[in-house]
Amino acid sequence: MTITGSQDQAIKRRLRLGMVGGGRGAFIGAVHRIAARLDDRWELVAGALSSDPERARLSGQDLLLKPDRIYGDFNDMARRERRLKEGIDAVAIVTPNHAHAAAARAFLKAGIHVICDKPLTTTRREADQLAKLARDSGLIFAVTHNYTGYPLVRQARAMVQAGELGAIRVVQVEYAQDWLATRTEATGNKQAEWRTDPARSGPAGSVGDIGTHAFNLAEFITGDEVQSLSADLHTFVEGRRLDDNAHMMLRFASGAKGMLWCSQVATGLENGLRIRVYGEKAGLEWHQENPNVLLFSPLNEPPRLIRRNGAGTGEISRAAGRIPAGHPEGYLEGFAQIYSDVAEQITARLEGRPAHPFSLQAPNIEHGVRGVRFIDAAVRSSQRKAAWVQL
Amino acid sequence: MTITGSQDQAIKRRLRLGMVGGGRGAFIGAVHRIAARLDDRWELVAGALSSDPERARLSGQDLLLKPDRIYGDFNDMARRERRLKEGIDAVAIVTPNHAHAAAARAFLKAGIHVICDKPLTTTRREADQLAKLARDSGLIFAVTHNYTGYPLVRQARAMVQAGELGAIRVVQVEYAQDWLATRTEATGNKQAEWRTDPARSGPAGSVGDIGTHAFNLAEFITGDEVQSLSADLHTFVEGRRLDDNAHMMLRFASGAKGMLWCSQVATGLENGLRIRVYGEKAGLEWHQENPNVLLFSPLNEPPRLIRRNGAGTGEISRAAGRIPAGHPEGYLEGFAQIYSDVAEQITARLEGRPAHPFSLQAPNIEHGVRGVRFIDAAVRSSQRKAAWVQL
Amino acid sequence: MTITGSQDQAIKRRLRLGMVGGGRGAFIGAVHRIAARLDDRWELVAGALSSDPERARLSGQDLLLKPDRIYGDFNDMARRERRLKEGIDAVAIVTPNHAHAAAARAFLKAGIHVICDKPLTTTRREADQLAKLARDSGLIFAVTHNYTGYPLVRQARAMVQAGELGAIRVVQVEYAQDWLATRTEATGNKQAEWRTDPARSGPAGSVGDIGTHAFNLAEFITGDEVQSLSADLHTFVEGRRLDDNAHMMLRFASGAKGMLWCSQVATGLENGLRIRVYGEKAGLEWHQENPNVLLFSPLNEPPRLIRRNGAGTGEISRAAGRIPAGHPEGYLEGFAQIYSDVAEQITARLEGRPAHPFSLQAPNIEHGVRGVRFIDAAVRSSQRKAAWVQL
Amino acid sequence: MTITGSQDQAIKRRLRLGMVGGGRGAFIGAVHRIAARLDDRWELVAGALSSDPERARLSGQDLLLKPDRIYGDFNDMARRERRLKEGIDAVAIVTPNHAHAAAARAFLKAGIHVICDKPLTTTRREADQLAKLARDSGLIFAVTHNYTGYPLVRQARAMVQAGELGAIRVVQVEYAQDWLATRTEATGNKQAEWRTDPARSGPAGSVGDIGTHAFNLAEFITGDEVQSLSADLHTFVEGRRLDDNAHMMLRFASGAKGMLWCSQVATGLENGLRIRVYGEKAGLEWHQENPNVLLFSPLNEPPRLIRRNGAGTGEISRAAGRIPAGHPEGYLEGFAQIYSDVAEQITARLEGRPAHPFSLQAPNIEHGVRGVRFIDAAVRSSQRKAAWVQL
Repeated sequence: MTITGSQDQAIKRRLRLGMVGGGRGAFIGAVHRIAARLDDRWELVAGALSSDPERARLSGQDLLLKPDRIYGDFNDMARRERRLKEGIDAVAIVTPNHAHAAAARAFLKAGIHVICDKPLTTTRREADQLAKLARDSGLIFAVTHNYTGYPLVRQARAMVQAGELGAIRVVQVEYAQDWLATRTEATGNKQAEWRTDPARSGPAGSVGDIGTHAFNLAEFITGDEVQSLSADLHTFVEGRRLDDNAHMMLRFASGAKGMLWCSQVATGLENGLRIRVYGEKAGLEWHQENPNVLLFSPLNEPPRLIRRNGAGTGEISRAAGRIPAGHPEGYLEGFAQIYSDVAEQITARLEGRPAHPFSLQAPNIEHGVRGVRFIDAAVRSSQRKAAWVQL
Repeated sequence: MTITGSQDQAIKRRLRLGMVGGGRGAFIGAVHRIAARLDDRWELVAGALSSDPERARLSGQDLLLKPDRIYGDFNDMARRERRLKEGIDAVAIVTPNHAHAAAARAFLKAGIHVICDKPLTTTRREADQLAKLARDSGLIFAVTHNYTGYPLVRQARAMVQAGELGAIRVVQVEYAQDWLATRTEATGNKQAEWRTDPARSGPAGSVGDIGTHAFNLAEFITGDEVQSLSADLHTFVEGRRLDDNAHMMLRFASGAKGMLWCSQVATGLENGLRIRVYGEKAGLEWHQENPNVLLFSPLNEPPRLIRRNGAGTGEISRAAGRIPAGHPEGYLEGFAQIYSDVAEQITARLEGRPAHPFSLQAPNIEHGVRGVRFIDAAVRSSQRKAAWVQL
Repeated sequence: MTITGSQDQAIKRRLRLGMVGGGRGAFIGAVHRIAARLDDRWELVAGALSSDPERARLSGQDLLLKPDRIYGDFNDMARRERRLKEGIDAVAIVTPNHAHAAAARAFLKAGIHVICDKPLTTTRREADQLAKLARDSGLIFAVTHNYTGYPLVRQARAMVQAGELGAIRVVQVEYAQDWLATRTEATGNKQAEWRTDPARSGPAGSVGDIGTHAFNLAEFITGDEVQSLSADLHTFVEGRRLDDNAHMMLRFASGAKGMLWCSQVATGLENGLRIRVYGEKAGLEWHQENPNVLLFSPLNEPPRLIRRNGAGTGEISRAAGRIPAGHPEGYLEGFAQIYSDVAEQITARLEGRPAHPFSLQAPNIEHGVRGVRFIDAAVRSSQRKAAWVQL
Repeated sequence: MTITGSQDQAIKRRLRLGMVGGGRGAFIGAVHRIAARLDDRWELVAGALSSDPERARLSGQDLLLKPDRIYGDFNDMARRERRLKEGIDAVAIVTPNHAHAAAARAFLKAGIHVICDKPLTTTRREADQLAKLARDSGLIFAVTHNYTGYPLVRQARAMVQAGELGAIRVVQVEYAQDWLATRTEATGNKQAEWRTDPARSGPAGSVGDIGTHAFNLAEFITGDEVQSLSADLHTFVEGRRLDDNAHMMLRFASGAKGMLWCSQVATGLENGLRIRVYGEKAGLEWHQENPNVLLFSPLNEPPRLIRRNGAGTGEISRAAGRIPAGHPEGYLEGFAQIYSDVAEQITARLEGRPAHPFSLQAPNIEHGVRGVRFIDAAVRSSQRKAAWVQL
């Protein structure tokens, strides 16, 4: 019973983190901060926490940032931090979707590593341009498709890679919620407002907000790529401007087939992200709301319950956890794993050594680009009566 | 703690049942016989249990039928039983799919009520003709979409009808197995042989065998009709002649949307028939493998576990069970309910009174026709790259 | 996918069954009748269905018994049936507890096999005397500790016997309900009335009614005997005359230790019969309310889900089921297995051959005696401040 | 969807934490550090991380402590920190059990608040003396019965307090593991070594290590006190010096009765801490391994699934969580809540205001004393053949 994962070693070095967005009233920024803190590899030292300068200032004070590291504008922050001796090692971009690209560009140009929330951008063109810029910069660019940080998600991926399922045939993936089952955006809920606003959220609603997570999870676990899809997007709540439910059929490069469902009107569901993968030799099932167990079903054998850090888990999975089997880890720990992976990547550069290979599991800008292509394909397919569209 | 359901009353009268198919080596025939026996409203007295006369004779002996009620041919049986004073009240047709129609016609023409296994026929034309014949005959014609006999399936339907879910928006239904994950039909397995043989099974494999059950369940519970579908059928196992996996997107007459998945290659699953229905006001979920609980989730309230015959169940649901809550009923009991419903319908006619309204929940030939249309539409859609096809 | 279990073979012979008790208003009698009918090895032909002759007559008519096989008194029935050429092969005794012994004696003396509900008698002395009579008679005497008929209970027992768990260390067993959480017996509920009445139920309430089942299950699965126990019985509902909750610590002959809880006031529970057994090498868990799965956990391996008739089940378990894995069987099927086992035992005698060894799994009078000793020890221990009492 | 709980507000002030124990090779120290860090209300600044000075030094370096805040001895640390202007606000004591008391005394005498791991001490006398010292000091003294930090555990307690269950009748609580199913302590496992060593662990093994958690949970949720118990402790693994399994019957002050099981040899279980409480009006059930759901079963109503931060939760429960419903929180978050509660208590003193009442849910030294009394009573009862012993 020892503490496992990245926490097991000495810390050695804490990296300096800046943040864009995530001020008062925001949601995901606070999650990023806890995630960064959890494994003690990051220290938040700077922020442009709101596009409103006064709100940015107050938000910085809330977090005990030093006054001279509180910025009213992310461009100022990028410019100044690059020149500071103890400037930030990386920036976390946690604004609404439409603002990701400009902020990311500013920090890439300043030579600062980037951790960006998903979806990467609101258009495919912007995603491609940003990806080129990132590649050319040689900087680390992570995208927080955070569910890939769950230990048993990594376990699932490793099992597929090891051939334990044989050739994959069928993938069933879904992410269903109910928080937009009524017109929440008309009640003053800030989160609902921007997520249903095409100007801030992009061309898709549920597809961009949660469908991308489901899509990312399917590609991450199978190690396969969705080649084409047929999508039926729908808006059930009257007056809403973006889709709140989508049904899709998927075809993978390998020949596997799949279905994807995302919904914000699935009454009774909270964050029902669930994936099932069926191969020639075995199947597996994982549910985000009960993430410490993975059901693994070899053909003609009794299904097995693989528990986080328990019997049957491999090294890559155990390395992503902190505590012994039977003491549940959750969403924040999974999110923290992405931050620790990125910390390892940056630290390795600072120390002139290769990063631990496990840390490369963290999703990068290429995964971000895939997500944007997925959204784009889904919207176009649905506009054409669910015609098959290539990604 | 009293015995509930149809068993609660005196029997009064046992009906006489004949059977076509279901001899040695068959599967579903034995299930029909148990189902008929369970509530003590039927007595098996005659059979043409195989198309092979010798096998028919031996099978009849196995079941202790009187020698003169053992037939080598269903036409002989129909002709003779109609003339007997104590001839059969109804016939159960449990042959492979392709033989349903001819047998059904023979008994309808003999004025004998019919209980027919699903799918009703292998072609849409045949289904329509048979339906016309049945309607014209005035006889009772039940189709064993047996899952509608589960008490909590009826509970679900009643709750939708009562408006407890509000307008239905999304339906997710699936029936997934793994018994054909390898080429079982090449190993001498009789069940696998005919189910993967177009000549006996019809134009569809998994879609006809289990997809129809999923489809029927979706229409039964929602009380809605699938208007069109987009289907992607696939055969994963090399050498197989019919689909073993199918993905579909559904559109209902009411405006609801849905997805349907059926598979015989979903490694680890046994009889994973599961349905989830989401309405404006609430959602519900039911799983055939754990059929004594129904998850009901009103918006913004804690989800509730409605247990068979327990708190929160209505009369129609309780009437379909036999024993108190907490003592599980299963597949055979659900199947038996269809037989008891049909017994009630026939008995009511014999007694010159209206049948108990609950007994009308049993699926009839119109449901059988819907099932055949579903298969037909799925096959045609898939042939046209998943184009939307009307039912 | 073939029908499994005893149903797989030809019937060959239907045995004739009589019944004592189980008339109008009774509960368990109807369960016995369904159980007897399910596998088609019994035909109910005679009954003394109530101690009230008029009620007995009406109840017999309800069940379509022939008038001359409807008895107003079980002694008449025993005497006459023994002389009939086609007299009953066995009698099912389903009266309240206090009446078991007299009826059982009458039929034993008439040379008729007995199937008796549990607990066998209301006193230890009476149980011992009856057991002697039964042994001396050479007749078959089954006691319906029906939960041993569940296929996965037999699977569990077989696994313990095969040493798959190693030496057993700990047994946790419980049977908890809530139907007596209020004073149900004062509301006209017949079942509650006699079960809380010492004159009809015996010296124990919950301990006799359901504790005996838990006790029997623990001994059946472990193949071990409880040697002594320390019990704390309590009556929570004011005005009730028998215990409605009991806590016990157990010591087994092998050195294993256990706990037993039975309750009729466990709010929210229906028929929560659950057992967990932990050995040196593995543990297992089974729950009556979800009886088609057995959790098997070998030390340092992922727990496995053994499903009824699925991968990992042995012959003895598969023989006790009727339908393929994934189609749930329940309480009635488990109960039916006891009847089919007894039918096999009797048929074997009639045919002059040894009974199939699996049929000997059915609980017999020795198990009934153990149950009565358990009740007796629990009551005495509790009267002595939970002192350890030998069975 | 806003971040909830203590994280929702501005931080305002980070407290300074010291730690005794928890150096290289330790387990629970790292958990305390993550817990302290999670909500950003603590900063670890000093430590006497091992009784071995060299190990203490290296461990301090691992954690990036300043050299002058790394101590080889806790007495030195207490003396010096009290005099520092920026000395620690509180100390976390995370040594093996036998060393708790001396360290706690040292810091109390230095006027420094204490957070101490459980069990408080290894003898009842020591516990009473320490409690007196703590009371006299007026300092805050928390004991990390950390499971009380889970949001739904607080929800459960609040529901009992609000009378939603009516008078409590029955409590079933258990904490079962399997990590000592073999002689782990002979394999070089440090955690197993000291936990099975009377000199370091005290007079009890499983009872002290995990039984105390179960006991604490039962008293916390019911708000009731165990008045007496009857215990059967046992050592199953040969050569082990302390109990590895214990069965107990409990009697509460209110008249409720209960059972408690703790085990370290329950093959297949990891951290199976589970509690069920049955009252006159309702029952509830919570399982640590799936901590984001609480089953609540009002009599004669369908059971309800209360999900962390979801519908049906109250303010006190929601305040103990960080993220929206459906994104699971786990063990570290629950542990962190205790640290945040203590931070709030200390901060309130520093700011001269009353602490937020919710923060008083954190277990204090009185709960620690109860735990030690429980151990003492259990050991004495078992020595006297499970006689009833008062706490």
